[in-house]
Amino acid sequence: MSTPPRTAIEFRVRYAETDQMGVVYHANYLVWCEMARTELIRQRGPSYAELERDGVLLAVADVSMRFHSPARYDDPIRAESWIEEIRSRTVTFAYEILRLEDPGNAAPERLVTAQTRLIALGHDTRPRKLPPELIHALENG
Amino acid sequence: MSTPPRTAIEFRVRYAETDQMGVVYHANYLVWCEMARTELIRQRGPSYAELERDGVLLAVADVSMRFHSPARYDDPIRAESWIEEIRSRTVTFAYEILRLEDPGNAAPERLVTAQTRLIALGHDTRPRKLPPELIHALENG
Amino acid sequence: MSTPPRTAIEFRVRYAETDQMGVVYHANYLVWCEMARTELIRQRGPSYAELERDGVLLAVADVSMRFHSPARYDDPIRAESWIEEIRSRTVTFAYEILRLEDPGNAAPERLVTAQTRLIALGHDTRPRKLPPELIHALENG
Amino acid sequence: MSTPPRTAIEFRVRYAETDQMGVVYHANYLVWCEMARTELIRQRGPSYAELERDGVLLAVADVSMRFHSPARYDDPIRAESWIEEIRSRTVTFAYEILRLEDPGNAAPERLVTAQTRLIALGHDTRPRKLPPELIHALENG
Repeated sequence: MSTPPRTAIEFRVRYAETDQMGVVYHANYLVWCEMARTELIRQRGPSYAELERDGVLLAVADVSMRFHSPARYDDPIRAESWIEEIRSRTVTFAYEILRLEDPGNAAPERLVTAQTRLIALGHDTRPRKLPPELIHALENG
Repeated sequence: MSTPPRTAIEFRVRYAETDQMGVVYHANYLVWCEMARTELIRQRGPSYAELERDGVLLAVADVSMRFHSPARYDDPIRAESWIEEIRSRTVTFAYEILRLEDPGNAAPERLVTAQTRLIALGHDTRPRKLPPELIHALENG
Repeated sequence: MSTPPRTAIEFRVRYAETDQMGVVYHANYLVWCEMARTELIRQRGPSYAELERDGVLLAVADVSMRFHSPARYDDPIRAESWIEEIRSRTVTFAYEILRLEDPGNAAPERLVTAQTRLIALGHDTRPRKLPPELIHALENG
Repeated sequence: MSTPPRTAIEFRVRYAETDQMGVVYHANYLVWCEMARTELIRQRGPSYAELERDGVLLAVADVSMRFHSPARYDDPIRAESWIEEIRSRTVTFAYEILRLEDPGNAAPERLVTAQTRLIALGHDTRPRKLPPELIHALENG
């Protein structure tokens, strides 16, 4: 059994993303997950911006996140995303957020793991089936 | 068996909290959960601001959220919070986010349900036990 | 010569609004200005949500802000807004953001002063004239 | 007379940065300005993260921004920053935010221009002089 292919993005933590605890405010990791998911979709088929213009919205239906270690300002971050499951109306994405290695640091450190289930909506915001070509594109990443 | 007492806050959706789908961006519900949790803590004992000054940080360790219906700009919102479980080092809070009734609307509509488990940290950001007086205050809400 | 009437909103600083300097991240004051402006419009005529549904968008064209003293987590805040100038296509709002008095504190402390000029757009996002009834409502606050 | 050297960063607009008008919420451009400023400081001397650890905070004292054209979700953006003026206690940065050219688009389009004046504070948050080596590094960009 093979592991699903992952898409990764890399960026640095913004000052605006920190809070007074001196670490990244927890809700911001969800934004990073969404950025990684956007990139996964872009690489496998139509961009999410194109999907929306074609009348397919993907709305987040549920979220689970686990925080292992905090990210800090200016840290180099990698956010990885892959597909856990595709059904007729929903797609479940999984995520791993890592701090990239520093010069004196052997390996990336896992900061957050997460899952989000997205449901397909039409422009009327009612549930609809995922277009077959989108399913095909996502499955063949 | 009794249901745990709830603390509620009320406010309106900010324009900044919407996204181009015309609804509240999903990560913002986590901010509302934290506001409700802050109010619960304030009403039962020391404010969270005081807790931090006394060397007790509460860091979010995991999150689960389910999205039932979206909030929109300027909607009147109620965010309710209660305690699910207290252990020596962690507290689990639960949340229900509702749209308040409109004139022509019989009852508040449930938008989001969520749970967050928080872990106590000292100012050195290492895990520590919850202070007994905090446990006592939270238990007797 | 009379001073223009002011609209005020009050709220507490959210944890999410702080940054690692231990104070409110500067861009968030713009969100508070917009909340105060929204309330001013609501009190004087149609709500901004209604305006948008009627095809009048008000887009921010320029901003100036001066930071006098920082707001901190959980501070009680008042954001005041008033109209500086109305022209056929633009409205200029001014703002004063204050920390409300503490028990041992004589008077509110001025934190931020700001101005924003907004330009009226149609749903096609092209500039348009402000509807006369909106001008009338805003002028008679 | 020479024009000051510019530092640029490039990134894509995040979904979280849009609002229900379908464009980037105006306060977010200030975050982009700060990211460009951070990069300018990093390239010319100590990183801002190092500066803070050494006891020099740079707090925003005033802001002016002009909005020429809106950014949209997933747009490729370039944020440029340069130094307008250095004084003993303050540095004024200027910014230009551009949408990068599309295949069928001759040149980047100017979206926002801005200026921010920053004031040096010590860890006690009282004004202090800029360290001479920081002035030197910034001047010789």
